[in-house]
Amino acid sequence: MKGAKLKNKVVGSGHLTGIEVPGQLKNFSNQQLLELADEIRARIISTVAETGGHLAPSLGVVELTIALHCVFDAAYDRIIWDVGHQAYAHKLLTGRQKDFGTLRQYEGLSGFPKRSESKYDAFGTGHSSTSISAGLGISVANYLKKNQARTIAVIGDGSMTAGQAFEGLNNAGDLARNLIVVLNDNEMSISPNVGSLSSFLSRKLSGKTLTYLKREMEDFLNSIPGVGPNILQVLRKSVDSLISFFTPGMLFQALQFKYIGPINGHRIDKLIETFEIAGNIEGPVLIHVLTKKGKGYELAEKDPTRFHGVGAFDVTSGRSLEQPVNLSYTKIFGRTLKKLGDSNPKVVAITAAMPQGTGVDCFATAHPERFFDVGIAEQHAVTFAAGLATEGFQPVVAVYSTFLQRAYDQVLHDVCLQNLPVVFALDRGGLVGEDGPTHHGVFDLSFLRVMPNMVVMAPKDENELQHMVKTAVDHQGPIAVRYPRGEGAGVKMDEELRALEIGKGELLREGKDLLLVAIGSTVQNAMEAAERLEGEGIDAAVINARFVKPLDSELILTWAEKTGRVITVEENALQGGFGSAVLEMFEEESFFPKAFKRLGVCDFFVPHGNQVLLRNLCGIDTDAIERAALRLLNYNNGQILRAIR
Amino acid sequence: MKGAKLKNKVVGSGHLTGIEVPGQLKNFSNQQLLELADEIRARIISTVAETGGHLAPSLGVVELTIALHCVFDAAYDRIIWDVGHQAYAHKLLTGRQKDFGTLRQYEGLSGFPKRSESKYDAFGTGHSSTSISAGLGISVANYLKKNQARTIAVIGDGSMTAGQAFEGLNNAGDLARNLIVVLNDNEMSISPNVGSLSSFLSRKLSGKTLTYLKREMEDFLNSIPGVGPNILQVLRKSVDSLISFFTPGMLFQALQFKYIGPINGHRIDKLIETFEIAGNIEGPVLIHVLTKKGKGYELAEKDPTRFHGVGAFDVTSGRSLEQPVNLSYTKIFGRTLKKLGDSNPKVVAITAAMPQGTGVDCFATAHPERFFDVGIAEQHAVTFAAGLATEGFQPVVAVYSTFLQRAYDQVLHDVCLQNLPVVFALDRGGLVGEDGPTHHGVFDLSFLRVMPNMVVMAPKDENELQHMVKTAVDHQGPIAVRYPRGEGAGVKMDEELRALEIGKGELLREGKDLLLVAIGSTVQNAMEAAERLEGEGIDAAVINARFVKPLDSELILTWAEKTGRVITVEENALQGGFGSAVLEMFEEESFFPKAFKRLGVCDFFVPHGNQVLLRNLCGIDTDAIERAALRLLNYNNGQILRAIR
Repeated sequence: MKGAKLKNKVVGSGHLTGIEVPGQLKNFSNQQLLELADEIRARIISTVAETGGHLAPSLGVVELTIALHCVFDAAYDRIIWDVGHQAYAHKLLTGRQKDFGTLRQYEGLSGFPKRSESKYDAFGTGHSSTSISAGLGISVANYLKKNQARTIAVIGDGSMTAGQAFEGLNNAGDLARNLIVVLNDNEMSISPNVGSLSSFLSRKLSGKTLTYLKREMEDFLNSIPGVGPNILQVLRKSVDSLISFFTPGMLFQALQFKYIGPINGHRIDKLIETFEIAGNIEGPVLIHVLTKKGKGYELAEKDPTRFHGVGAFDVTSGRSLEQPVNLSYTKIFGRTLKKLGDSNPKVVAITAAMPQGTGVDCFATAHPERFFDVGIAEQHAVTFAAGLATEGFQPVVAVYSTFLQRAYDQVLHDVCLQNLPVVFALDRGGLVGEDGPTHHGVFDLSFLRVMPNMVVMAPKDENELQHMVKTAVDHQGPIAVRYPRGEGAGVKMDEELRALEIGKGELLREGKDLLLVAIGSTVQNAMEAAERLEGEGIDAAVINARFVKPLDSELILTWAEKTGRVITVEENALQGGFGSAVLEMFEEESFFPKAFKRLGVCDFFVPHGNQVLLRNLCGIDTDAIERAALRLLNYNNGQILRAIR
Repeated sequence: MKGAKLKNKVVGSGHLTGIEVPGQLKNFSNQQLLELADEIRARIISTVAETGGHLAPSLGVVELTIALHCVFDAAYDRIIWDVGHQAYAHKLLTGRQKDFGTLRQYEGLSGFPKRSESKYDAFGTGHSSTSISAGLGISVANYLKKNQARTIAVIGDGSMTAGQAFEGLNNAGDLARNLIVVLNDNEMSISPNVGSLSSFLSRKLSGKTLTYLKREMEDFLNSIPGVGPNILQVLRKSVDSLISFFTPGMLFQALQFKYIGPINGHRIDKLIETFEIAGNIEGPVLIHVLTKKGKGYELAEKDPTRFHGVGAFDVTSGRSLEQPVNLSYTKIFGRTLKKLGDSNPKVVAITAAMPQGTGVDCFATAHPERFFDVGIAEQHAVTFAAGLATEGFQPVVAVYSTFLQRAYDQVLHDVCLQNLPVVFALDRGGLVGEDGPTHHGVFDLSFLRVMPNMVVMAPKDENELQHMVKTAVDHQGPIAVRYPRGEGAGVKMDEELRALEIGKGELLREGKDLLLVAIGSTVQNAMEAAERLEGEGIDAAVINARFVKPLDSELILTWAEKTGRVITVEENALQGGFGSAVLEMFEEESFFPKAFKRLGVCDFFVPHGNQVLLRNLCGIDTDAIERAALRLLNYNNGQILRAIR
């Protein structure tokens, strides 16, 4: 079987296929549970090897998941998986094993917990650090309903660095309702964790801190009347073990949580015992569980960052089965940023726990002093960048579009209001594919262009991306460059970087019948559509807008007037997006075209599925543009048209 | 002099008027500094009594401010005031005393630190909890520039409850650069503080926690070999003082900060001594300073919540000089929510540290078990509400529009994506007046209407508000009601609450020449404008849109077609706002009006000043609507018009 690489264990006890509801686990012996864990691992590995997915996080919590389902009744109690990328074992144990092969495929199982998918998914997740807040809400609700259900939030140590987790702990400690927080401590988020909390949790206190604590303790002991030199001598020897008392439970006790741990997260029996105790404690409890990311699959244990989220791969070699033809946008961005950093000592790069994911790792290697991984803390990342900018630096915040949503207020106030030169390099703009609705970056054009002082651009290809990165770093104000997930178009890369003129688009094709105005990834589709339309005798002009803000109103207006019919295309929400910016500009210029159509993501949450399929679903691919053009030209008499979208 | 109420001290030493740069303070004796503090207090009280402003916070930090300026050079070092409403003494000491009478007035001094106002304002603030992040950025910048400047972030204990503060501490402890965090602990944010951190800081550990700690310590001491009963006896007596060692410094030490404190924040000499020590420590330091909010003005000391932010008042009696004629929107909301809560046990109310400010205090009094003040933690507030909603409750998050910006991602993912019935009661929607750009709520319609599943409404008056609150609580999905700061129109209030039909606007006035479509606070202006236009022989139809989303496209389209000319009015950004929603709908319906004009806040940060003036400045008052209508009718031939906005 495919999971054969599983540390040479024979995996075929057949427990898993018999499990339809998690309650069945309660009758399993410890030995059977251990066998089940192996089976689950094998199933996860073999499936993810085909579908791609979050392998290492899910492998790390197999025993934890089993133990939770042994002790709690997930249909009555509530288990919340923070981020949710570690919930594969949970899905397998809660009636979804038959569909597990459809993981992350269009209309298949979601890669994250989802309320509409299963009654066992208490709360939908995707972004980090919401589980304590949601869990507390659920716990309070049960208290008000006089319901004995227990609420369990499983959260990684990486997610614990985000401010919202702290807000949740602070409120939970205050309200003192029953809430079990399982801290899944693997010393990783996607990349190794950073931050002082991280070293605190892992009890690797720095020498400096240890010395400081020892001195403080000795001073204290000295100050107690009646403690003579002999006693002091004894106590001094014990200071080291006293220190261990301070960490890591103290932090959580300070926040009024009862602390249990650390527990070996791969010992099902110990976990069950602990959860049973915790389930009977009144008030908030934190259980500190130590796990290994990628556990049980040697390659993932060795390189958990690579196997955090993977595409299809060969189980034996671990090699990726997807061979991209061209360099990814991420790589091009990273390479360009490094190059700019080489010649400009004012360029600094900031990531929120994703040095590899955003491609800034190559900048980090070259310029470690000017690279900052701030942990899963987008709010802080943005304000930190603003602080650096006030002192003459040119910070580049490299972040996935969807995660910048966490820092809306900071972008608006700390950067835009103060008009500071901070660059937002927004990777994964548009439809990301299999990660689905929590990860699509389809709202950024809408929310960024509303912010005064902000410049928003999107490249048509990877060559334009490199110039836009240069443009951004040169610009003396807030500026965002947004580019898609995936590989570039394979276009020729210019040797020399050049700054583009802010607010200038480019006419890619003249035409007299209609105008296609596209932005970012959709420009290539617009060009393809124009070529097809030519074959049908239709002469379409195409503009690569380049800038969502400021818009090249002169260029767009000129060709809109010439053609009288306009179609805009974007990989972004139609509400308030790029097309709306064009509409607004027409209104400001009192220009009313004979016909107008905006193509983009309409008012719904786009599900998961591959990018090509989703672009088709949303009606922004070449076919859709061609269709829209034909429809517009059939109804060109300026009368009211109630088109069916 | 006006500050005579200042605890009977004679205030007239005249030090303040001589201070042009803060460096002069270094030559003052302690006695002179004490006299200066009294002068500053008197000046703050007499000024705020006229201009209104954040009185109690600024009075609490007079000595702290003086001490900081005695030790640090604010033109070289960097002082960051978290939130910034406590920076009045700082303004007086940094060259702005001559202009201090213009505080919060249009074109006068800002009520918050502002980089463009003074070189002594290192970082602009307004929303809480950004100072550590910004300070760390500045500190790292100075490290990279090999500059010895010190960075000081002054942050209240209330602001410390927001997640971003924790994110900043966590990163600062890790980077270990020089950074002084002054924790201004007055046990208050705007209202008394909540959260477990708060009780930890104030060292009012609960009996339960104390008992727990004692037992743990004893167990530990017992476990040390060689500690006999006698020694144990001695140690046991000292456990109480040992406990004090744990708190509150331990928390910050755990995050790798050196902790100094607590210090009496009204002893200038002690503060100076402490800041001098801190200024020579390498790495991050936290100085815990205890202050009294409202210090020195008896009435404010007694009621710091009322005097947190006040309008003009009489210094002797403390009585407000502004006598509102009508009940405020806030009061109407609060009263309605309480009423709904009386009859529906599923209604719960959530505030982020503003029970009075949002008007939910009356619900809190009536239904304490269903009321939750989560601290300054908007992200948590929203996800917590989502958790409650999953269990069948109908949570109402009462929040100022501007502060909801902090929870953009949580509103989108935790509420809208899961389509949960959470109500957002957005007070201070639109232009708030004197608090200025960090507090205007002019982006909410733009960012909320982009979110799938969200319903967005705004009432034309306080009677409609009460029905909308009912509508919101009845609705089975995400819904926001947004209303302005200030008093209602004084309209008659219906006895019975009724739910409005979702997505239905109302035609207020028929007309054939043009259509005014207004939303929220601007509806009354549109009606007034229509009446004036009638006097000029122009027949304007007026629609109260009620819903920004879903839009009443049928009603709007019908009258747009009848009149051919449309003006939209909103107290919101023009980018992506209500008017854009109407434009988008026209595009979807392929309707192209003869003339169209959107009125709203154009693409800039609206400064501070009174609401009437700002509405005029932004061109959304009755005059502006009338003017726009006249202009539209002069250019009604459907040709291209390049109107000058």
